[in-house]
Amino acid sequence: MADMTNSRIRPETLHAFCVAAMVKSGLREADARITADVLVTTDTWGTFTHGTKHLRSYLRKARAGGIDLQAVPELIGEGPAWALVDGNKSMAMAPSVMAMDLAIGKAKACGIGYAGVRHSTHFGAAGYYAAMAVEHDMIGLAMSNVDANMTAPGARGSVIGNNPFAYAAPAGEEYPIMLDVAMSAVAAGKIYAAQALGKAIPENWLVDDDGLPATDIRDYPRVGSLLPMAGHKGFGLAVMVEVLAAVLTGAAVTKQVRPWLGPTIGELTDEGHAFIAIDIGAMMPVTEFKARMDGMIREIRGAPKAKGSDRIYLPGEMEWERRTDALANGIPLPPDVLASLQGLAEDVGLEGL
Amino acid sequence: MADMTNSRIRPETLHAFCVAAMVKSGLREADARITADVLVTTDTWGTFTHGTKHLRSYLRKARAGGIDLQAVPELIGEGPAWALVDGNKSMAMAPSVMAMDLAIGKAKACGIGYAGVRHSTHFGAAGYYAAMAVEHDMIGLAMSNVDANMTAPGARGSVIGNNPFAYAAPAGEEYPIMLDVAMSAVAAGKIYAAQALGKAIPENWLVDDDGLPATDIRDYPRVGSLLPMAGHKGFGLAVMVEVLAAVLTGAAVTKQVRPWLGPTIGELTDEGHAFIAIDIGAMMPVTEFKARMDGMIREIRGAPKAKGSDRIYLPGEMEWERRTDALANGIPLPPDVLASLQGLAEDVGLEGL
Repeated sequence: MADMTNSRIRPETLHAFCVAAMVKSGLREADARITADVLVTTDTWGTFTHGTKHLRSYLRKARAGGIDLQAVPELIGEGPAWALVDGNKSMAMAPSVMAMDLAIGKAKACGIGYAGVRHSTHFGAAGYYAAMAVEHDMIGLAMSNVDANMTAPGARGSVIGNNPFAYAAPAGEEYPIMLDVAMSAVAAGKIYAAQALGKAIPENWLVDDDGLPATDIRDYPRVGSLLPMAGHKGFGLAVMVEVLAAVLTGAAVTKQVRPWLGPTIGELTDEGHAFIAIDIGAMMPVTEFKARMDGMIREIRGAPKAKGSDRIYLPGEMEWERRTDALANGIPLPPDVLASLQGLAEDVGLEGL
Repeated sequence: MADMTNSRIRPETLHAFCVAAMVKSGLREADARITADVLVTTDTWGTFTHGTKHLRSYLRKARAGGIDLQAVPELIGEGPAWALVDGNKSMAMAPSVMAMDLAIGKAKACGIGYAGVRHSTHFGAAGYYAAMAVEHDMIGLAMSNVDANMTAPGARGSVIGNNPFAYAAPAGEEYPIMLDVAMSAVAAGKIYAAQALGKAIPENWLVDDDGLPATDIRDYPRVGSLLPMAGHKGFGLAVMVEVLAAVLTGAAVTKQVRPWLGPTIGELTDEGHAFIAIDIGAMMPVTEFKARMDGMIREIRGAPKAKGSDRIYLPGEMEWERRTDALANGIPLPPDVLASLQGLAEDVGLEGL
């Protein structure tokens, strides 16, 4: 671990390691670079649950036949402001970046663009794709359905995924606004973390197979369903993502989506994704928009603080601050991510970080 | 109240009354019909907090100078897939319907369309505009910023509106999916209702001016701020609506938006709205999309029920069932709506319903 200082790792070192692991596994270098960029950027934001930690599982899934590293994503339809991409069972970051690029190009020409993806799988952090739009002075939205892991008001058991939804918008001197949320009260990752530590969870995270609050989480995810955030609101927004990302794209819907790991590791999950880009400059001078964003951000940040609070964070502000630190000082990878990367190195016969 | 049976009123009777009240107040008949359609449709859904009950206040605001009944909404910019409308202080339903129609037209040509509105005011229920897309076999999104009435994690006092967000999507034999939600844990209307009844409210609805749970609501909205739904998630989604509906359109942002009633009744609120339409037929045969929607809806509805639940409602299902009943048997207007309409009749010198 020669490049680490204070248990930190340089982003470019981590990126090179990830590319090497993917290329050694048989993925084209261009797609390996795209995938590494998605995962390492996510780690720089401190969103370690969705970053390079997953690469070992993606490649394990590829070896099991659930991802085809030879597959090439394909543009199967387009119009002035829309496009549809078939992931063809490829590593999901390739069709996702391709689709967001298409949405951005369509938005440049028309003002707004939509691109959908079908026959895809776990695409990492939705926020990465939303943030791509920001580099083009656009507003970006990104979303995906996932396997049904969440219940609905009145239901017992899972009926729909806790479908992630992200957006990002550029500011001027301030960091871009960015939000990446799942439609459940908490992400499944928090439950796995509690599980790993043998901790109990609050009553509003999970229901058991009777639809009652689950506190014994030893058998999750075999037993238990996530609760939607804000009840019918989170459920209703999960349905919106399902419609835009899966019903409309031809991907698998709700219970037809396969979990990406576990017994179905060898199968295509057949998730769908949706990406929307809106070109700010078509509607308003970009400098004016950014000044308006800065004004809003500063007004909210400067508002009176609640008792016990000394700061109000705008959406994405914590992530961009962590990224600034990570680019300057290295990414402080937590032990579980390091362990996963070491395991990956052994899996594919690389020297490790 | 000749048309009422069992305290119900025919939608067309209510519509005619509303048109008459607006025309008598000086609004063009075409815009009066548009506004009445928005408000009466909302009542047929049972969303009485956002329907004809507000008409008295809209016209009171017009008399005070906060809405200009002579104003004509204006298309001030457009491209292949986008449009921008200046409400010019008009009754907000006119520029809103105009903008959603523009978004639908752009989507027909390009696959997706965005239309923004600025210099507008309270536009009623966002769900109405989203549902307009469904009649064109499109998916519709509609949203608005409102005056800052909601706090943020870490803040004391209001920093942003509980900005409403709605979407709708057509199905085949099933009702369309439709969701219309505010980004607060509960809508302000629920607090006004508790206030009117002298009831206490749960701890997670409102914070007082110290940022602590408010249970004494006698001075709301002068004292107290709504809590976002699901904490930072609801706050972050409210910021998204603010960006798409206000920062991008040139409308007032956050604290610059004026409350539509109260001391600022005589001023333009300067809210902004955003509408997006997505043309299903561009991407997939409409019959196939609708069959996929029906499949998803039936799968979720047919899922095992939680203990104590005998039904799972899809988003919008309750509203469409109420509408079916209202069209057949009349709208069961609650006493507060009837009282408001009677007051309106007196205000403008009409005979009443």
